[in-house]
Parts: sequence; structure tokens; C-alpha cells
Amino acid sequence: MSRLASWLPILDWGRRYNRDTLAADGVAALIVTIMLIPQSLAYASLAGLPPEVGLYASIVPLVLYAVFGTSRVLAVGPVAVVSLMTAAAIGEHAAVGSAGYAAVAIVLAFLSGAMLLVMGVLRLGFLANFLSHPVISGFITASALLIALGQLKQLLGLRVEGHNALELLQGIVRQLPQTHGLTALVGLATVGFLFWARRGLKPLLRRMGAGPRLADLLAKAGPVLGIALTAWLTWANDWQAQGLKIVGTVPQGLPPLTWPVFDAALWQALLLPALLISVVGFVESVSVGQTLAAKRRQRIEPDRELVALGASNLGAAFSGGFPVTGGFARSVVNFDAGAQTPAAGVFTAVGILLAALLLTPALYFVPQATLAATIVVAVLSLVDFGVLRRTWVYAKADFAAVLATLLATLAIGVEAGLVAGVALSLLLFLFRTSRPHITEVGWVPGTEHFRNPQRHAVALSPRLLGLRVDESLYFANARTLEDRVNAEVAQRPQLQHLVLQCSAVNDIDASALDSLEAIDHRLQDAGIVLHLSEVKGPVMDRLKTTDWLARMRGQVFLTHYQAVQQLAPELLAAADAAPVRSSTPA
Amino acid sequence: MSRLASWLPILDWGRRYNRDTLAADGVAALIVTIMLIPQSLAYASLAGLPPEVGLYASIVPLVLYAVFGTSRVLAVGPVAVVSLMTAAAIGEHAAVGSAGYAAVAIVLAFLSGAMLLVMGVLRLGFLANFLSHPVISGFITASALLIALGQLKQLLGLRVEGHNALELLQGIVRQLPQTHGLTALVGLATVGFLFWARRGLKPLLRRMGAGPRLADLLAKAGPVLGIALTAWLTWANDWQAQGLKIVGTVPQGLPPLTWPVFDAALWQALLLPALLISVVGFVESVSVGQTLAAKRRQRIEPDRELVALGASNLGAAFSGGFPVTGGFARSVVNFDAGAQTPAAGVFTAVGILLAALLLTPALYFVPQATLAATIVVAVLSLVDFGVLRRTWVYAKADFAAVLATLLATLAIGVEAGLVAGVALSLLLFLFRTSRPHITEVGWVPGTEHFRNPQRHAVALSPRLLGLRVDESLYFANARTLEDRVNAEVAQRPQLQHLVLQCSAVNDIDASALDSLEAIDHRLQDAGIVLHLSEVKGPVMDRLKTTDWLARMRGQVFLTHYQAVQQLAPELLAAADAAPVRSSTPA
Repeated sequence: MSRLASWLPILDWGRRYNRDTLAADGVAALIVTIMLIPQSLAYASLAGLPPEVGLYASIVPLVLYAVFGTSRVLAVGPVAVVSLMTAAAIGEHAAVGSAGYAAVAIVLAFLSGAMLLVMGVLRLGFLANFLSHPVISGFITASALLIALGQLKQLLGLRVEGHNALELLQGIVRQLPQTHGLTALVGLATVGFLFWARRGLKPLLRRMGAGPRLADLLAKAGPVLGIALTAWLTWANDWQAQGLKIVGTVPQGLPPLTWPVFDAALWQALLLPALLISVVGFVESVSVGQTLAAKRRQRIEPDRELVALGASNLGAAFSGGFPVTGGFARSVVNFDAGAQTPAAGVFTAVGILLAALLLTPALYFVPQATLAATIVVAVLSLVDFGVLRRTWVYAKADFAAVLATLLATLAIGVEAGLVAGVALSLLLFLFRTSRPHITEVGWVPGTEHFRNPQRHAVALSPRLLGLRVDESLYFANARTLEDRVNAEVAQRPQLQHLVLQCSAVNDIDASALDSLEAIDHRLQDAGIVLHLSEVKGPVMDRLKTTDWLARMRGQVFLTHYQAVQQLAPELLAAADAAPVRSSTPA
Repeated sequence: MSRLASWLPILDWGRRYNRDTLAADGVAALIVTIMLIPQSLAYASLAGLPPEVGLYASIVPLVLYAVFGTSRVLAVGPVAVVSLMTAAAIGEHAAVGSAGYAAVAIVLAFLSGAMLLVMGVLRLGFLANFLSHPVISGFITASALLIALGQLKQLLGLRVEGHNALELLQGIVRQLPQTHGLTALVGLATVGFLFWARRGLKPLLRRMGAGPRLADLLAKAGPVLGIALTAWLTWANDWQAQGLKIVGTVPQGLPPLTWPVFDAALWQALLLPALLISVVGFVESVSVGQTLAAKRRQRIEPDRELVALGASNLGAAFSGGFPVTGGFARSVVNFDAGAQTPAAGVFTAVGILLAALLLTPALYFVPQATLAATIVVAVLSLVDFGVLRRTWVYAKADFAAVLATLLATLAIGVEAGLVAGVALSLLLFLFRTSRPHITEVGWVPGTEHFRNPQRHAVALSPRLLGLRVDESLYFANARTLEDRVNAEVAQRPQLQHLVLQCSAVNDIDASALDSLEAIDHRLQDAGIVLHLSEVKGPVMDRLKTTDWLARMRGQVFLTHYQAVQQLAPELLAAADAAPVRSSTPA
């Protein structure tokens, strides 16, 4: 693959395009288009934007992703969590429905796209790794709950304002008596229909004689059916006159050419939200892309994906859209429907373009409550409280990160939640590595192995102490090692040799080297010789650049066994006769 | 040792106190007192405070350290770097010489003492470990240069204002023509005398017939000799009338009882400086204490040291002082002079108290330039540019941390320097662990070892891939492993088994577990089985709490050799006949 083709994967797959891939991509695109129309309307409304913006965000970005993306099947467009983050970010700078609101959305898409592009070119994709899985889980669950609560007011026809879960919940409970009956009926019935459609529609269609392919296609179209049905009922019964809110006029036509307004204060305020939107969108997109690519033994290139998502978001910014990324459900549908190349994305974009040109009058009577219902059903599948139990059992640090992210997101907001989660998980990681597992090791008789006397029956020498450090030695734990060595030495008056077994030491930084020198120096003062064993190649390479190896009185042994052979041979010789000290029952 | 005695080490050593320890402590205290008088005056002036404050800070804090400290020989009191940090912190809130200035110093000592105490009680001493050695080196060198530059203006009788090294240097160069001749003469002559006294005074005294002990004592008293001599010359020649600045009236008497003024805004502004002063003081003190304790196979308890230093600083706050800590040079002198117990500190405090009561009139004619000279000579020994070369050779990340700390401290100030250094070293550590060394491993024929084919002649199987990860698996590198596995698998069409050798994996967090599950899942889709080998006990304990071990198709092997024996026996059998793939020359 040439250098150019590595930046433009379209040159690679485009050259081998033929009628078979065209047919496969075409069918997949049709299914995804049907799925994407209600999603794009709903997520635009979730982001606080007019419905046509959702359609615009599903045209140009898809084409650009097809040109630059390395995933064959990723379906880009508006997604729930990023739309929520968009609403939260814009909400501080413009009122929903104002002209300024859409302008801020465009700035946000532009900044997010530019950041993704720069991160991709500078190969900074690894930065996304600092968003740990527990933080992502906690964040997605909390976001889904926030979204569901926010949509609940639409489902019930209430006017509740709130910036966090508690305010929303209080507002909804307080206003419950003002529930608009017809709105609640339409909304809750749609929720019920959509939940049923997920499980019951496909078997029903099969029983009614539909082929498996058609049944699957129609079942995927559940939200479209719900929208069509409620729109038709609203039109037929003139429900909008009875207070049911409808989508109303959606402008017909091509996406507009837009340009991000420059306002230094606004741009600065949007930097952090844009960064978080970029990272969350990238992480969501890459994990879907990787999972699907692996099923066909393909690969995606995370740094190229950054470029592709960056281009998509810039595309959204210049065509009247808002931040987009690769969506999970939609991509899985694209994959299952047999999409072979990113051309499926281009065909989907054409489908949405036709909808924007021709279909918008048909959207007039769609009830807002129906859109809210499609969102609620989509996001509730993202809620996963099980992660709390799983992390509690597996690792308390991860549990703390989930809980902090979850609570901060619900109580304060999406940005605070992410920042709190990332900060806490980094602090806990640093804390953990700053207190490494250090164990004394004794000889397991009959082997060349050395193990912890707390776990195994081993032979120990009063003259020689073996210590194994289960962590790279770096500044945050160097002093811990010093303390531990001091403590061990202080209680061993007969000690002559200390051997540090370094099999799990992947790095020794300058602070740790200083600590080793200090330990060596202090041990010398106390008449004890410090040795190392099982030092790894890369660590040894680095130690060889210093003069400490020449200055230290002790030796570096290839294996811990060789160290004991040379320094305390009586231990190995007398082991059969001597009593074995151990804290495990004989 | 009882619980109470562990909090009050004085109960331990006090019980065994006898005439021998009294004599040893008394001699040591006399030497330290002689050394401490000029130091306490000079460091008070460095902190921008009147000279008597230096004496006050060398009385009550020493007694409190003797009660709570775990080091037998640590000499607490004003030190150069902490005095500089004190001046920097107060300078933003009060003018030097104003009554408010001393009041802010008391607040700073109080906050610093309270923080140290709380950190000690909560056992947060490990927090100091995040100040890496390169950061400390860079900071101390930069601080010493800042101090020397700041004192240079006193040595030359100039009035230069400047908040960073560049401003100071520019100011000094610009005002060089206004140098006050007599002041420069006294100052530079004292600098010359002190440098000479360090090396030449002791041999000279020995040649003049003094015993080694007396010669040593008199040589240590070099700064006192310098002060006495210049004070006598000033008095005899009436130099103050010719513009030589002198210390002037130093109030005679006991330290005053003081109380930190409460001012919420001031306290909040001083929180970060107080924290940094606490941590720097603690690190300096503990490293001296540890080094000296180890020489006698004693130990110090870092968390108890926090309590002791906290009490000392609270003592300073309530007795008209300023932040103190254990000083390096002074403690070494105390140790060399034979101090046996912290009672030596109490006797030193008595000595300084007598000086405060009786000696202050004798300080009237001491030239400011002489004090500046003692500071310059003391701090220039702290300058160590060699650390730049050493870290450059040893580890570029450490070099970057030194350089950033050094430059930020010189260019912006002490607080910015420390914060920049700590932040950069943490980021570089996270960056390093987020890109772990992962290597393919092949069989070294004739052994049970597996090594990197880039470094060793090994046998490889097209059906089995061994990968060794040289880092704990956690959220920041989990995806790197996924990417690497994807890349390795994509280029091996015949692959059936992937074995991850986990000998250097000290932890697997929830994100990494998710990644392993994802890798396993994707490999299953591709018809490849994932196995693990050489998983450590603690990591295995944790994996056993999950159901993944039951769900994974592969096995966990005790050794990598056993894995290959079972999964690709033909590799081991055919090795003698098969060509060995290796990139090293045969």
C-alpha cells in the first residue's frame, strides 16, 4: 500500500470495486438509511437542534468518512451520548431554539473535527486510552439515564428545566399533575411498541410469511413504523390542535454551506467540551470499528480513524450539522446487512440526501413525543449497573472510578463526570504503582525457583535476604523500596547479602537509580552487600550507561538461583537436613 | 514499643538517657549552636524577615522535633531553599519589612505545620514520593541560583527588584556601575574567606598545633569567625557611617507568643505555597534523616517525621518564627559531632535561646553583606548541573523533568517550577506505561527459555505466536495491546494459537480484563485460541474472581514452555532439523 493510499484508504478499496460489492453495499445502505432517518431527527432534538440539522449531519460526514476511514463498515452520524454532550456544551452559551444555538453547534463540530484531525496527524490516538473502561461504562450509563430523564418530560408533555439528574427528577415529580394526557399516551404507547418491536416484530413477520431477510429489515424499521403510524394518527385526528407537539415544518433542500463564527471567548470556552466530545466519540467509534473489523480479520488504524472522524466533523461544521461519530447499533446493522466497503456510507448519505430533498413534508405531523420515545428506547439499552458489581468484585480502584464518574455525571454534568473519572483513575493508578508489592523470596527446595515464604514452603538463610519487587521502579515508589529495605535490614542482625530479584521490574528511572545507589551506600555502611538478579535486557542496557554497576560492591546475577549458589551455598546444601521455615501448614 | 511511645519517641530514648549520652549530645549541641547562629540570621534575611525571627525559629521547633521526631540526629531549623520559598510566597501578599510580612510568615508556618501534621496522621507521607529526584535536583539547583543572584545584590550594595532569574540578572548588570565599593569589598572578601575556610582552615589549625577535634570545631565555626571579624572591623572603623548596611538593633529576649491571623482569602492563597513548602521540607528532611539513620542501622518513620515536622512548624508559628525543616549540612555536623539522641536538639535550642537573650547586642555591627556572603557560599554547594548530563545519558524522560523544573523555576518562580516538574514527570510516566514494550518471543533451542527474535537466535512456529508484555496491563495501555494483537494476527494467516507471556504483568485492571476478553472474542471470530502463561499469583487471584477464565477457550499455563509443549510440540521436536529464524548474525 502506497503512502498516499495509507492516508486515503478509498484508493485501496475503490480500485477493486465491482458489481458484487456494489449490490452488497446497496442493500446495507438501504437498511441503514431507514434506521438513520428517525435517529438523526431524534438525536438532533436531543442536542437541542431543529430536526433538519440531524439530516444534514448524516450526509457530508458520511461521505468524508468513506474517503478517509479505515473501517469497512463503520456508520457515522449523530449518536446519543455525543448529542447529549453537545446539548450540555451549547446550553451554557445559547438558548435552545435561538439562531445562536445552531451557530455554536457548528463551532463545536469544527473544533472537535480540528482536534481529531490534529490528534490523528500527530498520532495522539493513544490519548484516548486514558479514558478507562470503567470510566466509559459509568459515563455511558449516567449519560443514558440523563438522556432518558430529559426525554421523559417530552414523553409526558412537561416543561422541566434542569442541569443535572436530581433537578430533572425533582422537576418531573413536581409537575407530574400537569402531564398532558394525549402526549403521554402517544409517547408511552410508542415506547411500548418499540420495546415490543425489538423482540416480537421479527417472529411475527416470519409467522405472517415474510422471508428472514425481509422480516429482519422490517423489524429494524420499527422506529420508522412507529413514526409513520403516530404521524398518520396525528394528521387523521388533528391531534396537534389538542396540544400534541409536532415536528412541524422541516425545510426542504440541500444542506446549507455554513462557516464557524469566530469568537475568541466562545472558542476558548468550548475547548474542553470539544476535546471531551472528540475523545468520547473517538473511543466509541474505534471500539465498534475494532470489534467489527476483527470479525473479518481486518484491521482499523486508530490514528487514521482520528483523521477520518476529524474530516467528518469538519464536514458537519461546513454543512449545517453538529458533532458526529461512529454509532454502535447502526454500524452493527451495516455489518449484519453485508456492507463490504465504505461505499455503503456514501449510498446511505445519498439516501438521507433524498430524504432531505423529498421527505421532509412527510415529517410535519411526527409527534415530538414519538421522537422522544425512540431516544428513550435506544438509550435505555446502554444502561449497565452490572459494571458496579463486577468492578467491586474485581478491583476496588475500578469500582471507585465507575462510581465517581457515574455520580459526578448525574449530579453535576457530563463534562464534570468525565474529568472526575479520568482524574480519579489516574490518581488511583499512580497510588497503586507507588506502593508496589514487595515480597521476601526463599528457595523452593528441589527447584531453581524462589517464592514468597507466606505462600510457599521455602528455605531461608539468615545471611542472605532475597526481595522481589513486583513493579517498575520509578520516582513514586523508589522511596517505598528504601523504606522496605531499611525495615528488613534493621530486624536482621546477621545479614550479609541482599539480592533484589528484578524479574518484574520493567524500568528503573533516574530516581529509582538514586534510591538503589542510596540503598547500596547505606547497606555498605551497615556491612551488607547489595546484589541484583534477573535484570531484564532493556533495564540492563540502561544501567550500563551509568557508572553505578562499576561502583557497586555486589554483582548482577543472571538468575536468582545463581546468586544464592554463590553467596549462600550452605542454604542449598543443608536444605535437606535443615528445617524449612514456612508459614503454610506442612 | 508501646503505642504511645511510637507516637512519642522521646518516651523510648528518654528512659535510657544517661551521663554518656548527655556528654555526647552536649558537645554536638555546642557545635551545632555555633553553626546555627549565623545560619538562622542569614536565612531569616533570605526569607525577607528580621534577624531575630531566625533565632526564634531555632528554639521552640527544635524542642518539639526532639519530642516527636524519629531521627536521632536531625537538626531542625531555617534552611535555604525553604526560606527562598517562604520569601516567594509572602512577597505576593506583603512588602518586605512591613509588620504584615512577619504575620504572613507565621500564617505560612502554621498552614505548613498543620498540613504536615494531617499528612502524618493520615499516613500520607508517600505523597512526597511524587516529587521525583530529577525534579528535586532541578529545583534545588535553580533555587540555589536564584538565592545566589538575590544575595549578589546585597554583596554589591545594589537595590535590585526581580521575581525571576532573568529580571534579577538584568537588574544587577544594569546597576553594576552603582556598586557600593566598601560593601562589595566586605561581601566578596567574606565569600573568599569562607570558601578558603572550608578547605584550608582545618589543616592550618592542625599545623598551628590544635587537636583534631578542636580544629574541626573551629573550622565549622568559619562563618562565625567571618561574622565576628567583619562586625569588629565595622565597629572599629565606623563603616556603617560610610554606607555599609549593618544588621542593627536585634531585640533582646524570649521568643514572643504569636498567633496566625485568620484571613480566609490569604489562607486560601497560601494553601499551594504551604503545601509545596511542606513537601519540599519533608523530602529534604527525610532524605537526610534516612541517610544518617542507616549509618547506625537505625530507622526513621516517614509518617512520624511528618508529625514531628508538623509540630515543629506549628511551634514556629506560635513563637514568632517561619517555616523550618531538617537541614542537610547541620544534621551531618550533628551526626559527626557524635549526637546520640534528640536531646542534642534541645540543648541546641537552649544555646540559641541564650544567644537571643544575651548575644543580640553583639550582632548590631554585623554587616548585611557578611550574612549574604554566608548564604552565597552555603547555596553554591547545592548547584549541580551534572544532573542534566547524567539524566540525558540515562533517561530522556528524567532529563526533560530536570530541564523543565530548572527552567520554570528560574524563569517563573519556585512554585511554578515545582508544579511544572511534578506534572511533567507524571505525564511522562503515564506516557511510558501507556506504550509498553511488547515483544514476540521464540524458543531458545536447548533451554526452556523464550526470547525476542530481534535479539536472540530462536525457533518460531507459524501456528503459535508468543507475545511478552513488559508492563502491568491497565487502562492506558490496554488498547495498545489490542492494536498490537490485531496487527500481529492480520499478518499471520496460519496462526492458530496466541500465548501471552505474563511474567512481567504485575496487575490487570478492569479495562485490561475487558481488552483481554475483547481480544479473546475477536481471536475466536478469526479461529485463533488465546492462552496465557506465567501469570503471577496476585494477578491470578484476581482473574479467578471473574468468569472469564471459565469462558475463555484457551488455557492458563504455568510456564511458557509448557504452553508450547502442548500447543506446538512440532516446534520443539523439529528444532534441530528446522532452520532457526533470527535477525542476529549467525
